[in-house]
Amino acid sequence: MRLATIRNGGRDGRLILLSPDGSSYAEPAVATLQSALEQWTDIAPALAAITDFPHPVDPAQLAAPLPRAWQWLDGSAFESHGALMDKVLDIAPEKTGRPLMYQGVSDHFYGPQDDVPMPDETLGIDFEGEFGVIVDAVPMGVTSQDAMAHIRLIVQINDWSLRALAGPEMKTGFGWVQAKPACSMAPFAVTPDELGDQWRDGRVAMDLLVDWNGQRFGAANGEAMGFGFHDLVAHAARTRHLVAGTVIGSGTVSNANFREVGSSCIAERRGIEIVDEGTARTAFMRFGDHIRMEGRLADGRAPFGIIDQQVIAYRGEQ
Amino acid sequence: MRLATIRNGGRDGRLILLSPDGSSYAEPAVATLQSALEQWTDIAPALAAITDFPHPVDPAQLAAPLPRAWQWLDGSAFESHGALMDKVLDIAPEKTGRPLMYQGVSDHFYGPQDDVPMPDETLGIDFEGEFGVIVDAVPMGVTSQDAMAHIRLIVQINDWSLRALAGPEMKTGFGWVQAKPACSMAPFAVTPDELGDQWRDGRVAMDLLVDWNGQRFGAANGEAMGFGFHDLVAHAARTRHLVAGTVIGSGTVSNANFREVGSSCIAERRGIEIVDEGTARTAFMRFGDHIRMEGRLADGRAPFGIIDQQVIAYRGEQ
Repeated sequence: MRLATIRNGGRDGRLILLSPDGSSYAEPAVATLQSALEQWTDIAPALAAITDFPHPVDPAQLAAPLPRAWQWLDGSAFESHGALMDKVLDIAPEKTGRPLMYQGVSDHFYGPQDDVPMPDETLGIDFEGEFGVIVDAVPMGVTSQDAMAHIRLIVQINDWSLRALAGPEMKTGFGWVQAKPACSMAPFAVTPDELGDQWRDGRVAMDLLVDWNGQRFGAANGEAMGFGFHDLVAHAARTRHLVAGTVIGSGTVSNANFREVGSSCIAERRGIEIVDEGTARTAFMRFGDHIRMEGRLADGRAPFGIIDQQVIAYRGEQ
Repeated sequence: MRLATIRNGGRDGRLILLSPDGSSYAEPAVATLQSALEQWTDIAPALAAITDFPHPVDPAQLAAPLPRAWQWLDGSAFESHGALMDKVLDIAPEKTGRPLMYQGVSDHFYGPQDDVPMPDETLGIDFEGEFGVIVDAVPMGVTSQDAMAHIRLIVQINDWSLRALAGPEMKTGFGWVQAKPACSMAPFAVTPDELGDQWRDGRVAMDLLVDWNGQRFGAANGEAMGFGFHDLVAHAARTRHLVAGTVIGSGTVSNANFREVGSSCIAERRGIEIVDEGTARTAFMRFGDHIRMEGRLADGRAPFGIIDQQVIAYRGEQ
């Protein structure tokens, strides 16, 4: 199943279920994705039984599939990304053998085509292409093994980042607040079966095609996570319950052969330049820059749909 | 005005308005505190006009005034606390001249008398007595000066902490996830005028009486914040909008004369022991331990009511 949310003026929008070919949709009885996740085992069979999709899809009307969530916890599970970021941010996380994770703003996720206002071009505006999962209610202390069954939906995320603020905030040990504005989501949240065998071992084994201002920037594969999403869920739940609708991110998709496949964020490209040439050449984003992200299956389908949006100057509007 | 939330089986409970003497309450037309905050300038005059309080208050029925919030950002604004914690956690935040702040779990706040389940006594279970504020919608980029008017309610918080996990998580630079389980709130959220001149310069100039297992542990005053709450709100909003109902914490209340007034958390007491005696003697909490916290005005009143609860062993129930 592929689920999305259509704008209706409310903060949570209207849940819709996509037809198999993605061209049309049905409006299920349950009105929001948050509500569906809170009663997932009851709701999912009813959703799966829908066969009539009377409404044509207008991509411009789609919000993030989960326009707001009670919790967003983002990992950093790709080791090649971590190694390069250590060089860029001038601070390296102590290696603990456990997942890296921070909590970010979750009261708003931008839709896939929304303009993204940023306060200042000098803050090092960067995209981060990621995959993520949405869980139903997870009890504190869940094992990695038991966590797998709580992964109900998979999503594709752009974790907007402000690099000039990231290193200083890491050095406080308190983690990121200002360096991590609200994220964007691709339009469709999909059940794991939609990915076939490209969902395996708690990993999204798909290429994430990233284009910046129309130029291919990266095509890294999500399978290289050092921890699977089930491990990230268990890490998150060690000392807290996770409510239904909690979103857990992979961190920037990155592969060890980054010189061939490219990167899913600018900072990583800068890290490669520092390694190769001693200095970073690639500048961060400017107002008006476009970013496009598409996770692609081996058969060419893009189950999450496409993020395609621009950064704009924030002028005080809310 | 003093507002509280009575349990009704739902996640957000039922908003109530306390009578001036706190013995009885009214049920306003607006059903939840979150909803009231989303339309505060319209709602507040109607609340203030209520004069009939027909229902007697049963403290055992009170949840946290805001049982869940879209965002909880906690500062660490008391310098004497920070200096002692640097010794306890074996890692010191880089000094930046800017507020310290992390984002914590906000999908649940324990009520003032709730049992608090923790997974393991060896994790260094600690309380942190704090004050906090709840804002209405705050635009990104707000100045400290303009932030003051967005502070609609003041609350008293116990920021539960697991110290054995805190240092290792700080060393990742990603901040705290496992070290910070859900917090507790005292029963009443109050408008700033309820504190009279003990709300000044964005600070809660009240003693916070902390008793651990019936023994006075601390009575530090909230005025000593290095940054006011308006500064913390502006810091939080630098690169994000804050939705109505966002909660901002002061961090552990602490005074430079800690040897006279005591501390609002065990870790700080251990820091003092390290300074004075070379080693920490005071152990962290055990299952069955009680903690009581009461912010007290100069005239003896406790406008937030009282947190009085125990830590219990988590046995897998949700």
